[in-house]
Amino acid sequence: MIAIHTVDWVPPFARGLLRDLRLRWALEEAGLPYKMKFVPLMGRDGPDWRALQPFGQIPVYEEGGKTMFETGAILLHLATKSAALSPAEADAKNEMTTWLFAALNSVEPQLQAIVMHDRFHRDKDWYQGARDGVEEIAKKRLGDLASVLKDREFIAAGRFTVADIAMTTVLRIVMHTDLVESFAPLGAYKARIEARPAFQKALAAQLADIDAHAPQS
Amino acid sequence: MIAIHTVDWVPPFARGLLRDLRLRWALEEAGLPYKMKFVPLMGRDGPDWRALQPFGQIPVYEEGGKTMFETGAILLHLATKSAALSPAEADAKNEMTTWLFAALNSVEPQLQAIVMHDRFHRDKDWYQGARDGVEEIAKKRLGDLASVLKDREFIAAGRFTVADIAMTTVLRIVMHTDLVESFAPLGAYKARIEARPAFQKALAAQLADIDAHAPQS
Repeated sequence: MIAIHTVDWVPPFARGLLRDLRLRWALEEAGLPYKMKFVPLMGRDGPDWRALQPFGQIPVYEEGGKTMFETGAILLHLATKSAALSPAEADAKNEMTTWLFAALNSVEPQLQAIVMHDRFHRDKDWYQGARDGVEEIAKKRLGDLASVLKDREFIAAGRFTVADIAMTTVLRIVMHTDLVESFAPLGAYKARIEARPAFQKALAAQLADIDAHAPQS
Repeated sequence: MIAIHTVDWVPPFARGLLRDLRLRWALEEAGLPYKMKFVPLMGRDGPDWRALQPFGQIPVYEEGGKTMFETGAILLHLATKSAALSPAEADAKNEMTTWLFAALNSVEPQLQAIVMHDRFHRDKDWYQGARDGVEEIAKKRLGDLASVLKDREFIAAGRFTVADIAMTTVLRIVMHTDLVESFAPLGAYKARIEARPAFQKALAAQLADIDAHAPQS
């Protein structure tokens, strides 16, 4: 049985953004059964969790007594298990892998920098200057991505793949801004991919799990 | 024949840091023949290069008339071609893939943020505040990585893999600081892996190619 380990609860700003969404979504697309396991939000610095995830992040993937971390690695592993997630042909798989890495290594860091500034540094006297700097870089990267997506339904290989899961969840992390929607091809792509039933089911499940673990007030 | 496309020249601060080093190194470890192809440093915004690399970055990998970008994707592709780069057993391969993504998605962005500040923002009035912020996050990540590497010769699977190529080249990007060496297990790991003949050969080749294309003064 596959299990996804994640935190039991997060504050409102992180609802729908926890990276376990990538794995829930892939497993829903593939029709593979899985269960959820929860670590307390403040338990991620303990030795048990660090043994599973050395950086104290979530999620962790478990299968047959073995665990993996890094959602990119886990998505590629899941891609080997289901034709719903990956093409079979070698060149098409290479294109999928290329764009999975592009999402996580060439787009996410630029968007995550905006998130870090907006969530943790808004009160600093250097916020606006630094924030303008990271937004300029993010816009350049998103503009390049829009030039690709204006002619494509999916990001790679002419079909839905784990690269779309990575790219769409990356674009979601700046949902507190209108940055993505300011590039029409990106807003359309995100809306199109998010309309998939497997995404909607995975998102609803994440939100329900967070609500079920809400602290008693 | 495999070809690596990269820029013909870079200013001194980027010598030995160009990401084509990852591919040269992997190909030297594997003993696979390859040739280099060069794009002018200022030619990366042209339509020919953008058709190969939509973000205007380097390197691009070419094999059998097909191209790929994103060094992480290319390293995983090369890992399928040589036992010198990857274990064969499935769990060991998953561990390698996990740490390859960890290098590129959980360590590189934090170190790259330092590079961006030091190279492009040192003259801004918000530099020091923002720089302190990114250094704090980078140190936390490097401390977590040191806790793992204090007990390991290689980062994954008990042997040299493409994950070591990714992690070592990521640690190199802050070589203008003593950040990596301030964590003893990281400094020792980096020195140990960089001592490999294939790395030395790849690095020397990158530097020689840059010198050969130096602008006439």
